[in-house]
Amino acid sequence: MLSLQLNRHETRSLYQQIAEEIKTRISDGRLPAGARLPTVRKLAEELQVTRLTIQSAYAELQADGWIEGIVGRGTFVSNDVKPVALHDSVGVALTSEGILSDILTINRVLGMRSMAIAEPDAALFPIDEFWGYLTRLRPKAADLLGYGDSQGDPDLRIEVVRELQELEIDGNPSDVVITNGVMQGLNLVTQALSRPGGTVIVEQPTFIGYLNILKSQGLQPLPVHLDEEGPRLDEFEALAARERPAFFYAIPNFHNPTGRSWSMQRRHDILQIAGQYGLPILEDDIYGRIAYDTSPAPTLKSLDRDDRVFYMSGYSKVFMPGLRLGYLLPPRAFREQILMLRRSADVCGSGVTQRGLAHFLRDNGLKRHLRRVLPIYRQRRDTILQSLRREMPPGVSWTEPEGGFSTWLTLPRFFGRGELYRRALKQRFAFTAGEAYDMDDADELDHLRLCYGNQRPEGIEAGVKLLAQLISNH
Amino acid sequence: MLSLQLNRHETRSLYQQIAEEIKTRISDGRLPAGARLPTVRKLAEELQVTRLTIQSAYAELQADGWIEGIVGRGTFVSNDVKPVALHDSVGVALTSEGILSDILTINRVLGMRSMAIAEPDAALFPIDEFWGYLTRLRPKAADLLGYGDSQGDPDLRIEVVRELQELEIDGNPSDVVITNGVMQGLNLVTQALSRPGGTVIVEQPTFIGYLNILKSQGLQPLPVHLDEEGPRLDEFEALAARERPAFFYAIPNFHNPTGRSWSMQRRHDILQIAGQYGLPILEDDIYGRIAYDTSPAPTLKSLDRDDRVFYMSGYSKVFMPGLRLGYLLPPRAFREQILMLRRSADVCGSGVTQRGLAHFLRDNGLKRHLRRVLPIYRQRRDTILQSLRREMPPGVSWTEPEGGFSTWLTLPRFFGRGELYRRALKQRFAFTAGEAYDMDDADELDHLRLCYGNQRPEGIEAGVKLLAQLISNH
Repeated sequence: MLSLQLNRHETRSLYQQIAEEIKTRISDGRLPAGARLPTVRKLAEELQVTRLTIQSAYAELQADGWIEGIVGRGTFVSNDVKPVALHDSVGVALTSEGILSDILTINRVLGMRSMAIAEPDAALFPIDEFWGYLTRLRPKAADLLGYGDSQGDPDLRIEVVRELQELEIDGNPSDVVITNGVMQGLNLVTQALSRPGGTVIVEQPTFIGYLNILKSQGLQPLPVHLDEEGPRLDEFEALAARERPAFFYAIPNFHNPTGRSWSMQRRHDILQIAGQYGLPILEDDIYGRIAYDTSPAPTLKSLDRDDRVFYMSGYSKVFMPGLRLGYLLPPRAFREQILMLRRSADVCGSGVTQRGLAHFLRDNGLKRHLRRVLPIYRQRRDTILQSLRREMPPGVSWTEPEGGFSTWLTLPRFFGRGELYRRALKQRFAFTAGEAYDMDDADELDHLRLCYGNQRPEGIEAGVKLLAQLISNH
Repeated sequence: MLSLQLNRHETRSLYQQIAEEIKTRISDGRLPAGARLPTVRKLAEELQVTRLTIQSAYAELQADGWIEGIVGRGTFVSNDVKPVALHDSVGVALTSEGILSDILTINRVLGMRSMAIAEPDAALFPIDEFWGYLTRLRPKAADLLGYGDSQGDPDLRIEVVRELQELEIDGNPSDVVITNGVMQGLNLVTQALSRPGGTVIVEQPTFIGYLNILKSQGLQPLPVHLDEEGPRLDEFEALAARERPAFFYAIPNFHNPTGRSWSMQRRHDILQIAGQYGLPILEDDIYGRIAYDTSPAPTLKSLDRDDRVFYMSGYSKVFMPGLRLGYLLPPRAFREQILMLRRSADVCGSGVTQRGLAHFLRDNGLKRHLRRVLPIYRQRRDTILQSLRREMPPGVSWTEPEGGFSTWLTLPRFFGRGELYRRALKQRFAFTAGEAYDMDDADELDHLRLCYGNQRPEGIEAGVKLLAQLISNH
């Protein structure tokens, strides 16, 4: 009897839970090398699951080298498994791709405290209300389940225009392109504006997903450092003048990972320099409405007089990431090209989720939701700042986020590459390793991102305390 | 009073209907140049819609140049509008991108008979049954609405493995990648295998969406012609030997647009030549289960002994395109790279649609659905073949589809470029213009695709009759 514990209400499927449980038992020695596993039929009966579930778990364990099937004899724990605390694959590749993969993997491991992912708290989702909207789409379902509009559901585009009006951004529904999350939009704009081998100015640090997009499209990031007011103008102008970059990717509001916003003056100055060098700007405003103290300064798009800004925002942070819905307002001259690229990327999005969100927005559901959750996220922001002040040893500093879900820590180079990260993972605690953001070899300091959106205050305190101990013990 | 007719149960949103109705009135002269339109407030009252709806319609008409707003005086029909039968934009760009845009636009225009799109009939969707599955996901909703697994919902991957087992394709859930329709998977594989400026062998003709993917990634198609048994071996081998292509994109089962399948011998020969030149194959099997007479020969993937085939299929043709769900089984050596590209493309897909489909598949819903609809689609295939035999003048030939949703017509070059296509559009009838498939300047013949999946038999007969008259009248 393996006596595996399964949770039928959990997000991982049963076969994954079984595979994970067996890995844990192999890792901690309860199942030693060479131990025989129960037959598929026997384990299926014991756990009251289908045989296919067990077959899938065994197949995955076998593919990853944890167990071996020997024809006619049975299934056994492999002889060459090295005990590991977690997955073999986590904490190994210290690149933006590797660490993004870690973030998404860790997020589905039970018993991990992950402050590595900038996401809203699923416990705060207005599920019943939203499910009501989905359910009531039934009479329109046949239309919504056919091929839809590549530009996005027309009802949703109307609601996006309403949102944009509140930000003093002009636009018609025919100007808006709905995307699969902001990520797809970032890809489309990057594809439209650049040629392989080209360069793109980005903030240092910037969103690691965007660094991955650049790599996947064969482009080089040109980092510009941030000061208290935003991107440094001397660096920005030098890059614009010297490097002929394709455009500037920027997060002016509640920047990820620092949580800070550009000053009004800096916005004007950046637009002015961009105008001088004919440089388009891709403005990522996904955190713009998660404001704890005051509203941020006007968006670049609303200040843009010569239609050079591609404006993007979406619903993964302010609402629910699993909808995979974002939107893009490109300069008019680029609309057709963006649509063409969208049709080539995946034809269109899911009509059901788009229309459900449109109706929810139409009834001011998002405004109600934000009124309810912003005070909760503000409290979490306050908690992490208090904990950092209380726990962190001297020499460690951090940004004070005015919005969004993350703070950016800076510390002396106490540890070797990835060492602090792996030590934390061993204690089942995750942050976003600063190595993911490396574009800048000259940096003498270490960094890491701590995300507090998805943690209750007691979880934030426990996480910061553990991290402070790991640093202090050094 | 404009007396516009609105349909609140229609798939287009109200603002689009209003804009279209006004365009029609301008086109047919009921609203002449300079005519004054009602104020936003007045039209909103008349139609009992919100003012934002009218504003959106007017804004779109103004952006497209149909009307002009003059401050302080009102809104007027522009002086330089040329009357058009339909949208200005349809039937103009005779490229694969332009024609794909037409296909998707036409599909949402009321009163058009479109045999231009290879899609299932929405009237046959098992909406009630599927909606039940979606609704019952409620207890899992919080999990499904957060960031999900980039590789795809684990439950759905288990069901995909069940499907693959029936096709005698081996694979574990950890080998499968769920994608936003087959299109996203085609993009990921193409990105993984090629470098900008490279070449890819494709069948001539092939899926026009794939030609668009090649263009958007800066790649050149190398066409190989088809004979009765599949791709011509002499051409295939010559291209493989001479051009160093990145891979071969192939649709061996119920090929789009011809509806025919490769012979068994041809499959073996293609695999053998591919092996000789170390050429990967991207096998698109999206129509593989829409079989009217006999099952197709085994997939290339099931015959593949050296893990060179990327196998793709999905649910847009056998089930409902609006789910945007397909899957990819890459060679194991490429799995990590494909996942990395997927995370860069859009992080992950929608959990709700994936899990809903997984449960539907688990209960054999798709098998029941196919048992019900395949006889209906078979009848439509029979109807189009009978109509073509009855109506078409001599000199016109067509393929006899064994599965899938389309037949490929060949006719002498009676018409100038795009002429037949535009004449048909004027009669509110659409086919897929052969110009979309042009890779081959040497071809002395004209072609077009007729799709019958979404038409009732009387619609198929009417469409073929109209097309035959347009050809005969020439």
